[in-house]
Amino acid sequence: MQPKPNIVDLPVYQPGKPIEEVKRELGLTEVIKLASNENPFGCSPRVRQAIEAELFQISLYPDGSAAELREALAAYHGVDRDQLIFGCGSDEIIALITRAFIVRGDETVMADQTFSVYKTNADIEGAVSIEVPLKDGAHDLEGMLDKIGDKTKIVWVCNPNNPTGTIVSNDALISFLDRVPGHVLVVLDEAYAEYVTDPSYTNGVKLLPKYPNLIVLRTFSKIYGLASLRIGYGIGQPNVVKLINQVREPFNTSRIGQAAALASLGDDSFVAECRSRNSEGIQYLTGQFERLNLSHFPAHGNFIMVDVKMPATEMFQSLLKLGIIVRAGFGKYPEHIRVTVGSSEQNAKFIAALERVLSAQKAGV
Amino acid sequence: MQPKPNIVDLPVYQPGKPIEEVKRELGLTEVIKLASNENPFGCSPRVRQAIEAELFQISLYPDGSAAELREALAAYHGVDRDQLIFGCGSDEIIALITRAFIVRGDETVMADQTFSVYKTNADIEGAVSIEVPLKDGAHDLEGMLDKIGDKTKIVWVCNPNNPTGTIVSNDALISFLDRVPGHVLVVLDEAYAEYVTDPSYTNGVKLLPKYPNLIVLRTFSKIYGLASLRIGYGIGQPNVVKLINQVREPFNTSRIGQAAALASLGDDSFVAECRSRNSEGIQYLTGQFERLNLSHFPAHGNFIMVDVKMPATEMFQSLLKLGIIVRAGFGKYPEHIRVTVGSSEQNAKFIAALERVLSAQKAGV
Repeated sequence: MQPKPNIVDLPVYQPGKPIEEVKRELGLTEVIKLASNENPFGCSPRVRQAIEAELFQISLYPDGSAAELREALAAYHGVDRDQLIFGCGSDEIIALITRAFIVRGDETVMADQTFSVYKTNADIEGAVSIEVPLKDGAHDLEGMLDKIGDKTKIVWVCNPNNPTGTIVSNDALISFLDRVPGHVLVVLDEAYAEYVTDPSYTNGVKLLPKYPNLIVLRTFSKIYGLASLRIGYGIGQPNVVKLINQVREPFNTSRIGQAAALASLGDDSFVAECRSRNSEGIQYLTGQFERLNLSHFPAHGNFIMVDVKMPATEMFQSLLKLGIIVRAGFGKYPEHIRVTVGSSEQNAKFIAALERVLSAQKAGV
Repeated sequence: MQPKPNIVDLPVYQPGKPIEEVKRELGLTEVIKLASNENPFGCSPRVRQAIEAELFQISLYPDGSAAELREALAAYHGVDRDQLIFGCGSDEIIALITRAFIVRGDETVMADQTFSVYKTNADIEGAVSIEVPLKDGAHDLEGMLDKIGDKTKIVWVCNPNNPTGTIVSNDALISFLDRVPGHVLVVLDEAYAEYVTDPSYTNGVKLLPKYPNLIVLRTFSKIYGLASLRIGYGIGQPNVVKLINQVREPFNTSRIGQAAALASLGDDSFVAECRSRNSEGIQYLTGQFERLNLSHFPAHGNFIMVDVKMPATEMFQSLLKLGIIVRAGFGKYPEHIRVTVGSSEQNAKFIAALERVLSAQKAGV
């Protein structure tokens, strides 16, 4: 049984540590997880009712085309229904795109560092991934353009970028898209789009009519707070979406996921409140980082990447012992941690713990 | 944007028509769907409570390893935890297996006719699929053995077979496995295993210790009645499972799916009752088919394939107008329909409708 040679040594994705596991391992009663960019305010109160309305038909397959959700999202974004494709999280859409488009030996271009799922899936399909270092934590779109050649099949742009939280501006993005050759698919991952308040940020969906080689990814896992239900989507031109749809399993999203997403989409006020509380959280956290003399990247999502001036893995372990789970282990940033913006109480507890670790380190404890 | 050339003309999976759509299109108030082999008795009453217990943490990512469910299933099957892999339905496991193992130009061997998802996924990965005609609706394992060569990567055995409902016996299966070369992965799809009452049937999991190239697929979509929640699993040797896991997205099953599966697994009496009512349904339906002089394949799952002695697509349309959705369009069987075993009331209504169509046809109406 010979597997594809290129999958054997793939790194396994390391998810944020589960709260229960940390409680058990360290004997803690309270653990705060700020590791997976989940919504600390939960999800819309409409979701519970939407799920309960589905409980009488658990045994029936979901609508594989997600017709109701599709219609609502098409109206919401002002696109046609056949421009949408749904996935088990937007990470499944990433997998489907690579599975539909990449032939062994193709190239893809992405930032270094960015969301690891792009490279993993390109690797699985036998593509060569060219990773272009970030500049000040942001995509170097000019550098990425330079790496596009005849063999390039896909360019990945994560906006805001995970893990750094930076954005590319409307002008930079348009200038980039104007120069990407038509044979290259541009995947614009906007998982955190709904959090962004910066006026220079572009909603990629508005660019679709002008750039037929663009596909935008969105998710219900972040501001909508439905991470547990696994539902995300892609928007592109019908001919591109049709090709991705060719490699989609017929029932890749759940009945409950579809219903919850539909209910969430209708609750603008929940989204607006999460965005506003997230902005307050960013303001508080960045203020505290400045007080502690720690530099950080400009944060536009619901997370901040901060330079802790010590090995990030040590900081991770020290915070863990104090009951705070963050994310470390970003190869290019060995002294940065990524912390999710929590509730104001969680943020304050994180800062207290961070300060304690930094003081202990200073004191040489 | 050049896709993989082999995906462009793939047939799109045609799911059973949704009840609501048929009601709308035909102006019917009652529609019975016997098209997707769903459980007419719903799911275990424990499932609702298990789902409700998860509603407070919808915003948190699921445990990507499904640790609790994994532990329960390992105990249930008497296997190690690292022998299990979970998927968004067992159809996702099929996709993952092909994605992990198939290199362009490999061959796979399968029955004709069998579950269409094997061929679709082999096609996506650029494999050549050799389809071996069924014999009397059952896998021709000897014929399949003859087609295995140096290039063969995977052999698919669907047991019971979808759509015919036939099984391969314990003896035939063992004799087959004894002769399949070690470099060939045998995927034994047992989606309907829990329905089988025939003593000649083997639980493939028991064969795993002897055949390291065997992987068994199971699902919670059928007898457990969780089709809407998308959760299935594979069981194999740890080294095989590890390779499939390399191409799995980190969060491919939902929190609610995992919780519902765990609750279902503990409810043996629900499963036993569904199996028993299904057997009664098969007895009733096959008795009626004999009365109507219609031949059918031996049915071991929760569906029956019956020869309606007229074009199956016409029968499908005629039944649809009477509010009964079945499945037709099986290339090798243009005069057979596949009908799911429903509740006794649904079965009786199906037979009445079938008889009405057959009489009208006889009368030349």
